[in-house]
Amino acid sequence: MRDVAIVGVGMQKWGELWEKSFRDLFVEAALNAISDTKVPKIDHMYIGCMTGGLFVGQEHVGSIMADYLGQKHLAATRVESACASGGAALRCGFIEVASGMSDIVLVGGVEKMTDVSGDGATYALATAADQEYEVFHGATFPGLYALMARAYMERYGATRDQLSAVAVKNHDNGLNNPNAQYQMKLTVQQVNESVMVADPLRILDCSPITDGAAALILCPLSRAKEFSDKPPIKIIGCGMATDSIALHDRRDLTSLDAVRISAEQALKMAGKKIGDINVTEVHDCFTIAEIIVSEALGMFPAGKGALACVNGETRVEGKFPINASGGLKSKGHPVGATGVAQAIEIVHQLRGEAGKRQVKNAKIGMTQNMGGSGGSSVVHIMEVA
Amino acid sequence: MRDVAIVGVGMQKWGELWEKSFRDLFVEAALNAISDTKVPKIDHMYIGCMTGGLFVGQEHVGSIMADYLGQKHLAATRVESACASGGAALRCGFIEVASGMSDIVLVGGVEKMTDVSGDGATYALATAADQEYEVFHGATFPGLYALMARAYMERYGATRDQLSAVAVKNHDNGLNNPNAQYQMKLTVQQVNESVMVADPLRILDCSPITDGAAALILCPLSRAKEFSDKPPIKIIGCGMATDSIALHDRRDLTSLDAVRISAEQALKMAGKKIGDINVTEVHDCFTIAEIIVSEALGMFPAGKGALACVNGETRVEGKFPINASGGLKSKGHPVGATGVAQAIEIVHQLRGEAGKRQVKNAKIGMTQNMGGSGGSSVVHIMEVA
Repeated sequence: MRDVAIVGVGMQKWGELWEKSFRDLFVEAALNAISDTKVPKIDHMYIGCMTGGLFVGQEHVGSIMADYLGQKHLAATRVESACASGGAALRCGFIEVASGMSDIVLVGGVEKMTDVSGDGATYALATAADQEYEVFHGATFPGLYALMARAYMERYGATRDQLSAVAVKNHDNGLNNPNAQYQMKLTVQQVNESVMVADPLRILDCSPITDGAAALILCPLSRAKEFSDKPPIKIIGCGMATDSIALHDRRDLTSLDAVRISAEQALKMAGKKIGDINVTEVHDCFTIAEIIVSEALGMFPAGKGALACVNGETRVEGKFPINASGGLKSKGHPVGATGVAQAIEIVHQLRGEAGKRQVKNAKIGMTQNMGGSGGSSVVHIMEVA
Repeated sequence: MRDVAIVGVGMQKWGELWEKSFRDLFVEAALNAISDTKVPKIDHMYIGCMTGGLFVGQEHVGSIMADYLGQKHLAATRVESACASGGAALRCGFIEVASGMSDIVLVGGVEKMTDVSGDGATYALATAADQEYEVFHGATFPGLYALMARAYMERYGATRDQLSAVAVKNHDNGLNNPNAQYQMKLTVQQVNESVMVADPLRILDCSPITDGAAALILCPLSRAKEFSDKPPIKIIGCGMATDSIALHDRRDLTSLDAVRISAEQALKMAGKKIGDINVTEVHDCFTIAEIIVSEALGMFPAGKGALACVNGETRVEGKFPINASGGLKSKGHPVGATGVAQAIEIVHQLRGEAGKRQVKNAKIGMTQNMGGSGGSSVVHIMEVA
C-alpha cells in the first residue's frame, strides 16, 4: 500500500443555511478544498451522506455532486454508515489512493437537514437505529443516549454538572472556530437548566440539526509537494468496526466496543499508543457520548472520563485535547459531513493553522466518528509527514 | 495492486418476498455465498443499497447487516449509486482486497422494495433522478426512459416489435434461471399489447419491483485455492463513470456516455477489446436501456442495437450473449442487489455451471450496472483464472 496524504481541505460556516441547497453545500466545500491545493484534476470522489433520500428526496448522490461540481463523467461513490458516513468515506478514499487505483481523490461529506418539516429530522436520524426493534417502538436518538447517560451516572456516580462540563468546554472551543454553527459561551448552570429532551439529557447536551458539507483532497504522499506548499498530512492509521445496532443487544450500556476496536486497529496500524496522540476529534453527538468515547479510546479508565473533562484534561491545553474545533456540539452536526470535518480540524491542527484553538506542538492527531448509538465507529490517525 | 478473485456467490429466488424482511434477505444471500466457500472469517463487508431509508426506514445498513449476520464488530460499509449501488460496492470490495487492506471481503447488495404502499416505490426510485430539475416537475423513471425510447425510434426507425424482442429474449433466458422472479415466456404480441406505462413503454418493457439480495466473496487470487475447489474468477477490469444526472442536460438522448466511458476504462485495464467478451450482463431496467447500452459498450453501431437483438445476436448462442440470466426484466431488479447479481451470473457462466442458459466456451465475461437514466455506470470484466 502506498503512503497517502491529505493536501487540501475545505468547508463552510455551518448552520441553518436556508439559502443553500443540498448540492450547493457540497459544491462550495469541494471547491474550497480544491482551492486549497494545486491539483489539476480529480480521479475519483467519495461522498459521505447518511440519508439524502429522507432529508431532501435525493439519492444517487455521487452522480448529482459530480455533475454540479462541473466534473461531468467523474466517477463518484456515495458511502453511508449513518453519522459515521464521513469517516467511512475517508476510509474508502484512503484505500483508493493507497491501492494505486487513483492518484487524486476528493473525499466529501454533506447533509442538508433543515428542509424537512415536523418530526422529519428525528425520523430520518432514527433510521440509524434498529428500525424493527427500536424505532418502531418509539425509540429516538436522544432517548437511546439518555439510557446510556442514566446507566453511566448510576454506575459511576457521575453528576449533572459533569455532563454539562463537556458542553461548556466544547462551546469554549467553538468560540474560536469561525466555521462553528453556535459560537456562544455556555455555563454549567445554563446547560443544567436548559429544556429537558430525554431525562437526563437536556437540549444543551445535544448536538444540533445542521446544514453543511466538508471536503478534503487525498493523493499519494510521494506527490504531495506537487499539489501543495503546506505540510502534507499523512494518514498513518485507519480502523473501523461495528457493534450490535440495537442498544439493548450490547454487552454493556456504558461501553462502546466498536469505538474501542476501531481505535485499537488504527493505533496498531500506526504503530502508536493512545498516549502518543496530541489532539483528537471525537463524536460528541451528546455530552455523554464524548465521555464514554474518551474511555473507549483508552484515554481514561472506565468511569473516569466525566471527571477528566471537569478537571480540564480534555481542554486545548490539557493532556488529551478533545474537540478543539468545538465538536459536534458547537460546530454543528450535518451527519454525513461530520467525519470529514473532524479530519479537516486535525489537518488545521497539524499544520499549525488553528489560531486561538491551536494545540501546542500537535504532531499526531486522531479522529473518531460514530454511527447510531455506537453501531459503527471509524478512527483515523494522522501525522505531519 | 494484488490480483483479486471471486471465490463464492449466493442469492435467493427473487420476487415479492412478503415473508422475508430487509435483513432476512441480506443474511440469506450472504450465508449462501459464504457456504459456497471455505473462508474461515470475513475481514470487511461492502453492501450496495439504494435507499433503505425510503423503502424500509432503515439506514446504517452496514451495521445492521453485520449484526444480523452474526458477525458482531465486523466492519461494514454501505455504498450507493442508485441502481448501480451493487456495482459500486463490488468496485470498493475489489479495491479493498487489491490494496492489501483486507484479505476476505464480502460484497453484497440488497433491496426490500415491496413494503411501501401507494406510489412509495415510484417516489423512492425517482430519488435517483435530479430531484429539483426532474422529479419536482413530475418526471418518473418510466417517463425518462420513454423519452429515450421515443428519440431512438424517431432517429433510427426502430419499431415497437424491436423493443419487444428484448423482453421476449430475456424472458426466454429467465425460464432457465431458477432464481428469476418471472419465469414465464412472452411473445412480441403480448409485450406490444401490455398496459401502457409511459408511451412508448408498456408494462412488459419495464423491469419489476423486487425484493432480493445477492452476495459474493472476494480474496487475493493467490489464496483462492484455500477457500474454494471451484475455478477462481479473476476480476481483470473495473470502470466507473458518471454523466449529467438530469436527462435534459445530456449531450444526446440516445447515447449513454457514462456507459461508454466506464466500459472503455474496464477494457483498457483488462487489456481486452469488446470482441473478446464472451458473455455480458447489462442493465436492462427497460427494453430500450438494453439496446442503447449494447451500443454504448461498442457491441453494435449506434442505431443497430435493436436490430441485433431481433436477429438473435444477443441470444445465448449469438455473437454477444446479453443477459443470459434473464436480466433485470425477468430475473427482477431489487435495485441495490442488481449489480452484485450480475457478477454472480458471470461467475456461474465462467465456471460452466449455468445449466440450460450456459454460454458455450465462456472464458471472459462483463457486467454493466447503471444508475438512474444513465447518471452513473459501473463495468467489471472477469475471466477464469
